[in-house]
Parts: sequence; C-alpha cells; structure tokens
Amino acid sequence: MADRADAKPGFIALMGLEVDEVGAERVTGHLDVGTEHLQPYGLVHGGVYAAVAETLASLGAMAAARREGPSLGAVGLENHTSFLRAVGAGRRIEATAVVRHGGRRVHHWTVTMRDASDGRELAVSTVRLLVVDTAHL
Amino acid sequence: MADRADAKPGFIALMGLEVDEVGAERVTGHLDVGTEHLQPYGLVHGGVYAAVAETLASLGAMAAARREGPSLGAVGLENHTSFLRAVGAGRRIEATAVVRHGGRRVHHWTVTMRDASDGRELAVSTVRLLVVDTAHL
Amino acid sequence: MADRADAKPGFIALMGLEVDEVGAERVTGHLDVGTEHLQPYGLVHGGVYAAVAETLASLGAMAAARREGPSLGAVGLENHTSFLRAVGAGRRIEATAVVRHGGRRVHHWTVTMRDASDGRELAVSTVRLLVVDTAHL
Amino acid sequence: MADRADAKPGFIALMGLEVDEVGAERVTGHLDVGTEHLQPYGLVHGGVYAAVAETLASLGAMAAARREGPSLGAVGLENHTSFLRAVGAGRRIEATAVVRHGGRRVHHWTVTMRDASDGRELAVSTVRLLVVDTAHL
Repeated sequence: MADRADAKPGFIALMGLEVDEVGAERVTGHLDVGTEHLQPYGLVHGGVYAAVAETLASLGAMAAARREGPSLGAVGLENHTSFLRAVGAGRRIEATAVVRHGGRRVHHWTVTMRDASDGRELAVSTVRLLVVDTAHL
Repeated sequence: MADRADAKPGFIALMGLEVDEVGAERVTGHLDVGTEHLQPYGLVHGGVYAAVAETLASLGAMAAARREGPSLGAVGLENHTSFLRAVGAGRRIEATAVVRHGGRRVHHWTVTMRDASDGRELAVSTVRLLVVDTAHL
Repeated sequence: MADRADAKPGFIALMGLEVDEVGAERVTGHLDVGTEHLQPYGLVHGGVYAAVAETLASLGAMAAARREGPSLGAVGLENHTSFLRAVGAGRRIEATAVVRHGGRRVHHWTVTMRDASDGRELAVSTVRLLVVDTAHL
Repeated sequence: MADRADAKPGFIALMGLEVDEVGAERVTGHLDVGTEHLQPYGLVHGGVYAAVAETLASLGAMAAARREGPSLGAVGLENHTSFLRAVGAGRRIEATAVVRHGGRRVHHWTVTMRDASDGRELAVSTVRLLVVDTAHL
C-alpha cells in the first residue's frame, strides 16, 4: 500500500502547513499563524509546533527510506518538542528539519522553528523514526 | 489579559478534540478520527497525539494554577510524545491526563491515549508546564 | 559477540545500582544514595536517575529480545527522564521498569523511581530501544 | 546553603567527567571512556551520555543564574538524550553544552557529544532547568 503516500495529507492540510522543500537530509516548510492555531491564551498551541516538526521529519525520513527501496517508508517513534518563545496570530513560522542520524533502521531528525519576522527560535524538536516496509502498514 | 483564557480555543476546535472533564489533577477528552487527522500513509498523524496531550495537560495545569490565584495560568515547556500503535480513520481516541507533580512553579503531567474500541494504548505523553501570571502574557 | 552480555556491567557497578529482578515485562532495582551520587548542591544528580532508568529498561528489553532469538538484544535509542523531587544522601531509590510496547523491532519502557522511605516519586523515565542482532554489534 | 555549590561534585567525579570551560552560555567537558563506563555489551552506557549532558547544562545554568543573584541556582526538570552511535572503551567523548533559551525562570540547553577521534556525534541531549533560590534547597 505504498501508494497511500500519495494520498491527501489530511492533517498537514488541516494545519495549513506549507511544505517548501523535501530532501532526504533537509526539509523546510512554513505556517502562517491564524486564530485557528491558538490555545486559550491567544498563543500558538504547542501541538502546532509538535505537529509541524513531526511532519517535516517524517517527510524527510520517508524520502530517505524510499531511496533505499521503493516500498520503504518511515513512521514516528518519539517526538520531543521544547517550547522556547510564545507568539500569537499574524506571525509566520519557518521550520527546518535536518537529519542527525539516518540509518537503515532508525532516523533521528532535529527540527527548528523560528519566527520569520526576526529569526528567533520559537520551538525545537527531536523526532525519532523507524524505517518500515509500507507494504506491511 | 487573563480573560484571553475565555477566547475561542482555536486549535482545539480545529482538531475536533472534545474535552470531557477538566480538573486540577485529571483531565479527559476524546477525538473521533477522520481523514483530516491522517498523515500520508493513512494513519493518525503523530502531531494529533502530541496536540491532544498538550491540550489536556495544559487545561489541567491552568485549572490547578487558577486555584492558587485568579490571574495564574500555565504554559507548556516540553512535550514528549511516544507513539505506540498506529491506527487509521474511524477510531475514537480516548485521552486521560493525570498530574504527576503539581507545584507552585512547575507541573508535570502524563497523558495516555487509547483506542476506545479495545483499550489499547496508542500513544503516551509527558508534558512539563510552567506556572505563569497570565496578566504578563 | 553475544557473550559480551555476560561481561562485567561496568557502569552499573560504578553507580552501585542493585538489580533485583529481571523479566521481559518488568525489571526492578534499587540504589542507596551516597555522597558519590550527588551534584554540587548536595542533591542526587539527575544523571543517576537517567542511568538507573536506562539500565533497567535495557535489561528488560534484552531479556525480551533473547526470548525471540539467542543472538538478539536491545540498545537504547532515546531516554527521556523527568525529575520530580530532589533528595540527598541516605535515601534508597527504588526503581521499577515496565514495558509499554514490546515489538519485534522496537520497545518502549516506562521507569518509575521512588523514595523507598515514603513511596514518593522522585523521577520518571521513558526509554525507547531498538532490537538488534548482538552478533553485529 | 548556596555554598553547597562548592561541595565536592560526587557523581561528576565518580563518572570521571572533566569540565573544561564553564560559561553562562557555553560549557565544555570531556570523558575518557574506560571499562567502568560500559554496559553489558561493551558499549558506552546510555546513562553516561545523559549524565554528562545533565552536568554541563546544569553548570551553565547555575553560572547564568548566579549572575542574576548570588543565591540563585538551577535544578534540572527534564533531560532528553538521544543515542546516535555506539562506541566502546578507549574513546574520548567531547561534550559541548549551549544555551538555547535562558530566561529568569527556566533555561533550555542543548548538549552535543562527539567522538574526539573523528568528530562524529555520539549523542545529543536537551536539558530543561528551573532557576531556584539555592537558599531554599
């Protein structure tokens, strides 16, 4: 069922995350913060950062795995997201995921999310993924 | 700006998370998985679990903080989410957040997310939060 | 080189950790806190908790892997340790590791560390491990 | 009891960690791996990396806090360590901790640990700390 990778990326679209560049070692994207991204205090919901990081790291790991075999893919094992600065609506979040370790069995990616207006770090995530045969998902 | 806590919870509504019970020591909720929650392989996006956990832990910590002072609240510092089992659309995720340490300055919550159909754990999160004066947010 | 598993457990002995029970689903141990476990403020060093958790989870995952094949073992991928209460010398730390997900490829263990004198939680860890063929280590 | 910060650093010495440079924004150290640092497979125990990271981040946060007030210090809240490559005895681990967010109330440090012989990353940690008045510890 490897072609499910071509299915509509439901949660990515729901979030409004734009994926700008997908590579096996680096993935970038951005998200324009609207009121739909906020938690009750009017700040970006922490889950938004975690979900952005999970998305970019997964797309990168999927791309890297496919290079090793057409049916190979990757699924997330662990997502650790640290929140560094709080911002509200109207900002653009720029996210960059970089592979830190990409083996045949597991990957480790670091994702940095910044405020596009001043470059300050808003959140940083580490994502650990497992290489899987998507035919068995 | 403590009254922002009464604002519409944008991302919680966007996700479709239903919060069932909010207490200073325990918070529960559920989410019915639709295609809008899926990642490209047709499985629930890891960011959904992280966001559900962040929401419930935050609501609990906010409730606990308000008991200590009307302008007190809580913001997330760290969210660590482990993905245990993958499921697709049509399931209901039941989530329970329990405080593990709730001090005057920091809180630590554990959130367990299960498949309502069989009770199996899908994901587990630990969330660390900081008590803040919401008047200064 | 699977027999390396019988080698002297250097860091476990250095720490003074006593392993009490090793099973494929549950591992327990204890550590009597001396001055050699403290950080500069006279409190138990956070690294002690992380190392205790890593040890117990690994021993459990190793035991579970060996049941699947004599040359199989497990190595740690991620260790997330949360510090809940600080104590000094003279206490006994009781630790219990429980498997949360034990598959053929990856394991997830939760480790709880308590003050033996009053049962209060001092730290909690989640440890993610990869099943490996120890002949290839 | 702020002078406890001058007490012998028990676990740091037990580990054999050498602290090379302590600053409020950057801390470095190294550890020469002996058999006392190994786990049963003859590889560096994951707890060693977590403890090295916890030490360096804490020393940096303590230094930063003291600049804000003579009785101020820092204690660890969360330590997340990812293991990237396994090595055995005879290597030198070089560790560098860098502050990512250093506020009045909480700090966030990233610690990178490399094999001194080839510069490859062995482990990476994120450490979250709370600023405290050490007179109250």
